[in-house]
Amino acid sequence: MKYVFGSDIGGTTVKLGLFDESGELLDKWEIPTDKTDHGANIVGDVCESIKSKMEEKGIASADVIGVGVGAPGAVNEDGVMTGGAVNLGWPVFNLREAMEEKLGGIKVAAGNDANVAAFGEMVKGGGKGYKNVVAVTLGTGVGGGVIIGGKLITGATGAAGEIGHIKVDDVETEKCNCGHTGCLEQFASATGIARLARKRLAKDDKPSVLRSAELLDAKAVFDAVKAGDEVADEVAKEFGRYLGKGLAVVADVVNPEIFVIGGGVSKAGEVLLSYVEPEFKNTAFPPCSGSKFALATLGNDAGIYGCAGMVLSEN
Amino acid sequence: MKYVFGSDIGGTTVKLGLFDESGELLDKWEIPTDKTDHGANIVGDVCESIKSKMEEKGIASADVIGVGVGAPGAVNEDGVMTGGAVNLGWPVFNLREAMEEKLGGIKVAAGNDANVAAFGEMVKGGGKGYKNVVAVTLGTGVGGGVIIGGKLITGATGAAGEIGHIKVDDVETEKCNCGHTGCLEQFASATGIARLARKRLAKDDKPSVLRSAELLDAKAVFDAVKAGDEVADEVAKEFGRYLGKGLAVVADVVNPEIFVIGGGVSKAGEVLLSYVEPEFKNTAFPPCSGSKFALATLGNDAGIYGCAGMVLSEN
Repeated sequence: MKYVFGSDIGGTTVKLGLFDESGELLDKWEIPTDKTDHGANIVGDVCESIKSKMEEKGIASADVIGVGVGAPGAVNEDGVMTGGAVNLGWPVFNLREAMEEKLGGIKVAAGNDANVAAFGEMVKGGGKGYKNVVAVTLGTGVGGGVIIGGKLITGATGAAGEIGHIKVDDVETEKCNCGHTGCLEQFASATGIARLARKRLAKDDKPSVLRSAELLDAKAVFDAVKAGDEVADEVAKEFGRYLGKGLAVVADVVNPEIFVIGGGVSKAGEVLLSYVEPEFKNTAFPPCSGSKFALATLGNDAGIYGCAGMVLSEN
Repeated sequence: MKYVFGSDIGGTTVKLGLFDESGELLDKWEIPTDKTDHGANIVGDVCESIKSKMEEKGIASADVIGVGVGAPGAVNEDGVMTGGAVNLGWPVFNLREAMEEKLGGIKVAAGNDANVAAFGEMVKGGGKGYKNVVAVTLGTGVGGGVIIGGKLITGATGAAGEIGHIKVDDVETEKCNCGHTGCLEQFASATGIARLARKRLAKDDKPSVLRSAELLDAKAVFDAVKAGDEVADEVAKEFGRYLGKGLAVVADVVNPEIFVIGGGVSKAGEVLLSYVEPEFKNTAFPPCSGSKFALATLGNDAGIYGCAGMVLSEN
């Protein structure tokens, strides 16, 4: 039996997984992310944790096909973090080579965390069975991963799939974290939906359960939608217009078979897709408007599944 | 010596080329496109022309590595014209198989004409030396081709790279040919630039050489720009804003190394890029904003070069 490890490095924890050669998850665990000293210990900690697991399970290096790693920053084809990783304090360096050195020659595949999670959803999640998939993560921000012909697109500097920063509004004046205005992320992320809700409630006095919500977040909005609240419906429609429009552009460029929608916001379920899909179909160039929509199914495990998938697709 | 043929099927003529195994053009010629009978004779005519050339040059079938063909419609990975070809009268059919049958077993590679031309610009034109290229054709419409890792992206239905139909304006009320409003094509194609110029001239009485232009087309606009005409400069700036914004979105999705701008409008030369590049850099997500810009260099031969390139990249 051969094995694969996945390691999804986040700002708080590193999620790790042990997989068999068919990509089935055998074990998963977490270690804290040590951000002291500009994150200088993280790579060593991850590799030590993998080596401990190998010892615990009696797995020899020769039986490890490879280790996949996802990190929160742009990663190019060679495994270089081309802009470092701001959240971890990392400078520009070759993540793949650094891990291979510490793992004594075990092969490593490295990718951007959102891209790797997208890959996980293709191999084992909502996009299973497809080879042309765009995964969309609606979390604090909006991330994405573009998979064409079964391969992740990284782009020139590892920044492909940054669909959260597609400009979808010309009149917005509030700034996005990236410094621009009108980015998809400002309307379709968890924080974006909350912002749309606040703005809508401030507009007039129309009654809504959202006015008494303890926490006016994306969950409150979609819960209210399900309860038939008209104001929440308006907010969801606005969210759907922006996301549908943004994804239409993505379809015009790469014409995927399916969009897989994940991230915290997607916990709203199928109702979310009902606001996005019609807007998408009305805006995409007609020959590009046939893409299917599905919800992501792997949740926080998408990253480790994608890490394993990357290794297995290269072998 | 081995040979490759390229055949770029257009609405008026079919451009053909004979190449050596390194992709150098040895001979090129044209035949008329016979659109009678829903274009039923075109495939046969192209194949006959190739066979005549083989006879003329004494080339045996065994010495032909393959034939590449570009056609004006969506073509999927299997060579199927998924929506037929409206301009030729073609129904949905497998172009690759139809040609292989008539060529007695010589291998055929088929692609959308804009995509194939994009590939030509990568292998021998303005994008030479790069593997992640987006080619943009500014002609009667706006077409595009996306090449990632040296491979053309076709998408689920062969409609990837339809960047002319990216929505770049929310307030436009005139309809695009596709039935939607606000498409990039309405502002950045030859007809789009002429439209912007007409609208600008109608706005007020500001003096401009464009007011006495015999033909108010893209060439007249950029000639006037070069002559220092202020109104033409305003029109070019508006064109640049739209194209820069549209290409910024493309960069957010696929993060290419370089954009190669071709088509009739690009004959304006480097001055055109000076209106597009700054707008692009201001709108793209910063990590995606480093793409270079170049003009296409192959003109009408891009299609046949791309046909040969497709065949050679698969062998």
